[in-house]
Amino acid sequence: MSGFPLAHWVWGGGWLGNLGALDFAGGAVVHMSSGFSALAAAIVIGRRRGYGTQAYIPHNLPLTILGAGLLWFGWFGFNAGSALAADGLAANAFVTTHVAAAAATMSWLFVEWSHRGKPTTLGAASGALAGLVAITPAAGFVGPMSALIIGAMGGSICYGGIMLKEKLGYDDALDVVGIHGLGGIWGSLATGLFASKVINPNGANGLFFGNPGQLGIQFISVVATIIFVFVTGLIILKLVDMAVGLRVTEEDEIQGLDLSQHSETGYSIS
Amino acid sequence: MSGFPLAHWVWGGGWLGNLGALDFAGGAVVHMSSGFSALAAAIVIGRRRGYGTQAYIPHNLPLTILGAGLLWFGWFGFNAGSALAADGLAANAFVTTHVAAAAATMSWLFVEWSHRGKPTTLGAASGALAGLVAITPAAGFVGPMSALIIGAMGGSICYGGIMLKEKLGYDDALDVVGIHGLGGIWGSLATGLFASKVINPNGANGLFFGNPGQLGIQFISVVATIIFVFVTGLIILKLVDMAVGLRVTEEDEIQGLDLSQHSETGYSIS
Amino acid sequence: MSGFPLAHWVWGGGWLGNLGALDFAGGAVVHMSSGFSALAAAIVIGRRRGYGTQAYIPHNLPLTILGAGLLWFGWFGFNAGSALAADGLAANAFVTTHVAAAAATMSWLFVEWSHRGKPTTLGAASGALAGLVAITPAAGFVGPMSALIIGAMGGSICYGGIMLKEKLGYDDALDVVGIHGLGGIWGSLATGLFASKVINPNGANGLFFGNPGQLGIQFISVVATIIFVFVTGLIILKLVDMAVGLRVTEEDEIQGLDLSQHSETGYSIS
Repeated sequence: MSGFPLAHWVWGGGWLGNLGALDFAGGAVVHMSSGFSALAAAIVIGRRRGYGTQAYIPHNLPLTILGAGLLWFGWFGFNAGSALAADGLAANAFVTTHVAAAAATMSWLFVEWSHRGKPTTLGAASGALAGLVAITPAAGFVGPMSALIIGAMGGSICYGGIMLKEKLGYDDALDVVGIHGLGGIWGSLATGLFASKVINPNGANGLFFGNPGQLGIQFISVVATIIFVFVTGLIILKLVDMAVGLRVTEEDEIQGLDLSQHSETGYSIS
Repeated sequence: MSGFPLAHWVWGGGWLGNLGALDFAGGAVVHMSSGFSALAAAIVIGRRRGYGTQAYIPHNLPLTILGAGLLWFGWFGFNAGSALAADGLAANAFVTTHVAAAAATMSWLFVEWSHRGKPTTLGAASGALAGLVAITPAAGFVGPMSALIIGAMGGSICYGGIMLKEKLGYDDALDVVGIHGLGGIWGSLATGLFASKVINPNGANGLFFGNPGQLGIQFISVVATIIFVFVTGLIILKLVDMAVGLRVTEEDEIQGLDLSQHSETGYSIS
Repeated sequence: MSGFPLAHWVWGGGWLGNLGALDFAGGAVVHMSSGFSALAAAIVIGRRRGYGTQAYIPHNLPLTILGAGLLWFGWFGFNAGSALAADGLAANAFVTTHVAAAAATMSWLFVEWSHRGKPTTLGAASGALAGLVAITPAAGFVGPMSALIIGAMGGSICYGGIMLKEKLGYDDALDVVGIHGLGGIWGSLATGLFASKVINPNGANGLFFGNPGQLGIQFISVVATIIFVFVTGLIILKLVDMAVGLRVTEEDEIQGLDLSQHSETGYSIS
């Protein structure tokens, strides 16, 4: 079925596919997986020295914005490419990806503006990423207007998501839990809300198109994914930690990983 | 008509299209519009503090060059995509876009070399952009040899164009008037010179292909566009200025917009 | 013949093609040519002042990595585009290009790790480039598993290649001889080993597919290319040196070429 491509095949023989869960381009296998194994890693490895007392500010914001732009562009390959053909479904995934990322960027900026008083360019980059994550499972099952709502909601949800680390105390330098984890959950549930067989006959209808059961299936797939990746993540990371060690020495950490692990410095301006 | 795509549809129901003006990928709607509304903005907002007494040098030239390269690449989507199909017309637009940008880069460098004694990398980036702007309205109506001439002329014209700001006294940080405005005018008139129905049967012939009337039509479209965007630009900007204000306070400007508007700094090297 | 495209047409009327040498996307015409004319240039121009006594460290490693990523992406156009059609052969070239670059990245890192004690990000970028160079002549003649071996070998060979400059004493700032030159040789010979008519019926079988003669043909093309580009490179560079001079004055070199040749500085942070 062209609506259940690569991601499901990778995802353990398609158990979630057999369940009937929809995941167009890997919301479960890529984003929830990275998000909640990142949480396991943050717990096993622990916080950076000085976390909480020291501010960690992006050291080169122009490169952050540039990276977000390249990611946005590459995501077209990721999502539209999951149609496995240069057809109308790929075009739909292309458009929904773009619309969701744009809507999430605006949404994040407005929430940040009202919450902190000022919108930031880092927020624009984070919002774009949140929208891209959220639309990933839905890209080939929903239309552009649904993508607008999924993206706008995704931006706001992930803005809340990155504040979890302050509440719960884990150190997540790249906000993988808040953006990939929570954005992945929202995207998967949103697929259960907004999916339409008019967009993809090989998919299914969601709650808003008369099929409330799909939301339940998506919910089961979310819970199953989180439990699976978090528990296996903890086990694998603990085993690797015992075998070769995951954390550098205190001395190396103070010196910085660039120098201590790679004997390199990012910049050398003489 | 496949020769009058997106740009004309956006451009107010196609008035210029009804006139018979040729604009393949938005020379009027994008480049002349941005160029002359930028002039309106420069007049309404005024000059930066210290403009004229202080040198404004690009702070990170490698990123400027990188940005020009990404723009050049993205322009293929913009110009070739305006064929609205993956066909021979798109391929022609792709090739003319590339040839014009390359010719304008060389042209700018040679003019700069003879005028200031040294060619610069910033000049190479500006020249590439000038060529991309100039070929935009013509990309799907002219052949590669015409594109070479349009680009080479475009580079030289826009090199002169950016000196207008010093003569007329407006502050144009990104040279939008000189490059998008003047390059847009040249591109539109050049379409009236070099267009050929051999390249695009849905287009028209230009002056050099036996149809001097087309140049007149292009000229009318240029004048109409400039008047329309400059006047409406002035009105809209004045209204916004009265309603919410366009310019930050003197204190904020001295502190810099990154800090005062976004509480961010571009770099944080500790 | 779709298997002998652009590169051979450029390459002097296809002498190497007439010989029966295989070169899908320009291993000879681009990479060996650049590599060994660079060697000629390094000899004619000589070393930078301070070479050998002063460390030349990449001044901005994030931009190096970014550039390697953009090169990798652009190479898809270069190699897959040499199929001159959007067909299965292009897809094969696309996949072999990606696999070889990834394998070479890993290979370089492992060799560097065991040789110097630490893998570096600069090594990852160099390894990727080595793999891309090595697969270029083979991309449309070999399958993905062969590409894996060609890439992995290419990464190790070019790691050794960049040490030649220390042994032989020439100054090669960008390691063009070590990566493009040696990687080009390996890629051309590897095409004589791994080429298969199952992948490209218009090509030929290599040694491992029962046709040892192809390796001999590739060897001749390698020797011919190196002699041709090195000798003509020396002659042309000597002539240009006599006519207008290739090297800046000592004063200009100490001041730096940015300032002395272009009156520009890369960064201006005030």
